[in-house]
Amino acid sequence: MTALNDLIASFAAIGATEDGGVCRLAVTALDKEARNLFLREIGNRGLVPRTDAIGNMFGVAVLEPATDEIVITGSHLDSQPTGGRYDGAYGVLAGLLAVEAVRDRCLANPGAARRNLAVANWTNEEGARFQPSLTGSSVFAGGLSLQDAYACADSDGVTLGDALAVIGYCGITPLEHRPVRYVELHVEQGDRLEQAAGDIAAVSGAWMTRKISVVFEGDYSHTGPTPMALRRDALRASARAIEALYVEVARENAGAHASAARISVYPNSPNVVAGRVRVWFEIRHEDEAVVFAISDRFLKRIERESREIGVDISIAADERRSASLLDPAGVELVLAAASDLGCKALTLKTVTGHDALAIQKRIPASLIFVPSRGGLSHNPREFTAPEALDKGYAVLVETLWRMVTTRES
Amino acid sequence: MTALNDLIASFAAIGATEDGGVCRLAVTALDKEARNLFLREIGNRGLVPRTDAIGNMFGVAVLEPATDEIVITGSHLDSQPTGGRYDGAYGVLAGLLAVEAVRDRCLANPGAARRNLAVANWTNEEGARFQPSLTGSSVFAGGLSLQDAYACADSDGVTLGDALAVIGYCGITPLEHRPVRYVELHVEQGDRLEQAAGDIAAVSGAWMTRKISVVFEGDYSHTGPTPMALRRDALRASARAIEALYVEVARENAGAHASAARISVYPNSPNVVAGRVRVWFEIRHEDEAVVFAISDRFLKRIERESREIGVDISIAADERRSASLLDPAGVELVLAAASDLGCKALTLKTVTGHDALAIQKRIPASLIFVPSRGGLSHNPREFTAPEALDKGYAVLVETLWRMVTTRES
Repeated sequence: MTALNDLIASFAAIGATEDGGVCRLAVTALDKEARNLFLREIGNRGLVPRTDAIGNMFGVAVLEPATDEIVITGSHLDSQPTGGRYDGAYGVLAGLLAVEAVRDRCLANPGAARRNLAVANWTNEEGARFQPSLTGSSVFAGGLSLQDAYACADSDGVTLGDALAVIGYCGITPLEHRPVRYVELHVEQGDRLEQAAGDIAAVSGAWMTRKISVVFEGDYSHTGPTPMALRRDALRASARAIEALYVEVARENAGAHASAARISVYPNSPNVVAGRVRVWFEIRHEDEAVVFAISDRFLKRIERESREIGVDISIAADERRSASLLDPAGVELVLAAASDLGCKALTLKTVTGHDALAIQKRIPASLIFVPSRGGLSHNPREFTAPEALDKGYAVLVETLWRMVTTRES
Repeated sequence: MTALNDLIASFAAIGATEDGGVCRLAVTALDKEARNLFLREIGNRGLVPRTDAIGNMFGVAVLEPATDEIVITGSHLDSQPTGGRYDGAYGVLAGLLAVEAVRDRCLANPGAARRNLAVANWTNEEGARFQPSLTGSSVFAGGLSLQDAYACADSDGVTLGDALAVIGYCGITPLEHRPVRYVELHVEQGDRLEQAAGDIAAVSGAWMTRKISVVFEGDYSHTGPTPMALRRDALRASARAIEALYVEVARENAGAHASAARISVYPNSPNVVAGRVRVWFEIRHEDEAVVFAISDRFLKRIERESREIGVDISIAADERRSASLLDPAGVELVLAAASDLGCKALTLKTVTGHDALAIQKRIPASLIFVPSRGGLSHNPREFTAPEALDKGYAVLVETLWRMVTTRES
C-alpha cells in the first residue's frame, strides 16, 4: 500500500540514523517534529485533533454524533536510541489510515456506525528517556497520576512535565468522548510468527516482567597502589551479577528472558576503583512463579557473591508487571477478521510491554502483531515486508469496522 | 606546621565534597579557582609567577642570578571526582613553603646558592577528565606534543586546549631557566610505608602499567521478546571480561595489581540489549614480563569467551608505561636527608604514575612518599597525619637545600 509506505518513510526521516534506523527519543525536538507532522496528517484527513495534559495526541472521526462512545486505535511515535522504522510508528500510521478508511466506509453506509473512532499517539512508550515506560497510556488509563508522570526525570534531571512544556505538547484539549475499546497494531519484535509462518497474531495476554534495579556499594580507591585485598570494587560485583543472571536463567531452563542493559558507574574514572554502581535487571516469563523463582535465587546469589568481595547491595527499584490477559472477546474478533481476510492467524502472548497492556486496565484492549524479520527490534535493521504490513493494516481496518458498527463487543 | 595545614585546608575548600573529600577536575571553574589562589600565594611570597602554554604554573625564586640552572619541586592541584585532600595538593603546597624556606635560608647564607628554585603545579595529572594523564608534565618533558595535548577531549567532547582558554590558563610566560632536577613530595596511596612503620620512602622507580581499552561489539535488540539464543549482548561480554581480569591476576599469583574502573555502554537504555561497550583495563607489576603474561592471557581469554556469545572484541587503545628507574643519585640524596633529620626512611617503587616519572625523561627526578592511612587514596577518607606531613616537608626542604647549594648532583 503506497500510502502506508510513504507515511512510514516520511516519519522515519525524522531522527533517521546513518545506519537506516531511527533515534527519536520521547519529548525531544525530534519528537516535536514528528508530532507536528502527525498533527498535519490528522488535519489533512478531516479528523479532529486533540491533545491531553500528558501529551497524548488523538485524531477523532465523529461517526455517530448520537453517542459518546469511542473506539481508539494507535501506538507511539517515540523510539529507542537504536530504534527501527516500524516499532510504534507502524501502529500510529496504519491506525491513522485505518480511521480514515473506516470513516469513508461509514460515509458510504449511512446508519452503519454505532460508535466514534480515533487514532492515538501515546507519550513516552519506550521508557528510553523517562522511566517508567508506557507513561502516556498509563496516565490515560488511570494507572499513573499526572503529577507522578510529570515528575519523571531523564538522566540530565529534566522532568517530563518541563520537557512537554518546552515542545508545546502539554495539551488542554483532552478526548471528549468516552473510550470503550482499544486496538493496537504492532510489529512482533520476536520471531514466533516468523517461525510459524503466520501473518497475524492476536495477542491474548502478556508475560510477567520483574524489573529490579540494584545498587552495588563498595568504596573508592586508587586503581594503582591500593592492595588488591583491600579493594571493594562495585564494578566487579556488578559484573559478576550480570553474568549470574544469565546463569540463573539457563539453570531454570524454563524459557525465561532476562537482561541487564543499563548501568551507571561512579565515579567512572579509569583511575578510581568504582565505589557505586547501579544496574537495571529484567526477568520475564509467562508464569509468574518462574519469574519469582529466578529473581529470588538471583538476588540471594548476588548478595552473597558481592559480600565476599566487600560490596553491599541494595534494591533501588523493584517493579513487578504482572502477567495479564487481554480482552478475550477482542482476541476472537481479531482472529475472525483475519480469517475472513484469508490471513494465517494465531494467538500468542507478548513478552514485552505495550500501550495496550496499560489501557486494558481501563477498557477492553486488543493487540495485533505482524512478523518481524529475525525477531530483530530496537535495532536499525528492524524490518517487516510491505506485504506483511499491508495484511496487518487490512486486519486492523476490518477489526475497527466491526467494533464501530456493533455495540455488542 | 600550622602554615602547611592552613594552606592544605584552604585548597581543600575549593571543590570540597560533603563527605570531606575534594572533587576538583582538571581545567574546570574549580581548578581555575585553585589556580588563582595558588597564583596569589606565589605573589604573597615574592616568587615570580610563570605559566606555560599547557597551563603548567611555576613560582620562581631567583637564588643565583649568575646561572640559568633551576631545580623544580611540585605536584598537581587537580583531583579525581572522589579525591582526597592530600593527593597532589600536598606536594604543591609543601613545595611552595619549601621554596620559600630555602630562599630564606639562602638569604641568610649569602653565596651558598648555586642554582635557582621553583615550585610547579602540573596540568591534568589525574587523567580523570582528559586522557592520557600526566599531561602537563609530559608536555614539559617533551614526551607529548603541545598539539596532541590540546586535542585531548573530555567525555563531552570539550578539548583540553579549549578548556584552558576558557579558564584563562593558556600561558605565554614559560619558565625561562634551564631545569636540571625535579623533586616531588606525595602521599603514598598504598600501605607499604604504614606496614613498615616508615616515615619516608625514597622512590627508586616505577612498576610497569599496561592500560588496555577494549571495545565489545555485539548487536542491539529488544530486551523483552528477542530470543535469548539470538542475543549478542556486549554488556554481558564485558562483565565476563571484568571478572576474568581478577581471575587471571589471582592465577598468576605474582602480586600484580589490576583494575577495570571505567565503562561506556551504548545505548545504555534498560530496554535495548547493549550493542557496544568499552571498558578501560589496567594491569600493573614491577616485572614487565608478569604484566605481559597476564595481559596477553587475559586478552586471549576474553576474545574466546566473547566470541562464544557472538560478541567481537577490538583494542581501542593499548598504552604501555614501561617499568622505569628514577635517578639513583636523587634516591641517595633523599635517604641521606631523611636520615640526617632522624626519619625512618626506606626505598620502594611506585605502583602508579606521578609527574616525576614523566619529567625523569628530561631531567633527573626524585619522588618522596609519606604514609597514607590504610593505603586509601582517590577517596574522601584519604588521610595522612599532620606530623607525618611535616616530616615529609622537612625532608623536602633539606633535599632542595642540598640540590641548590651544590652543582655536583
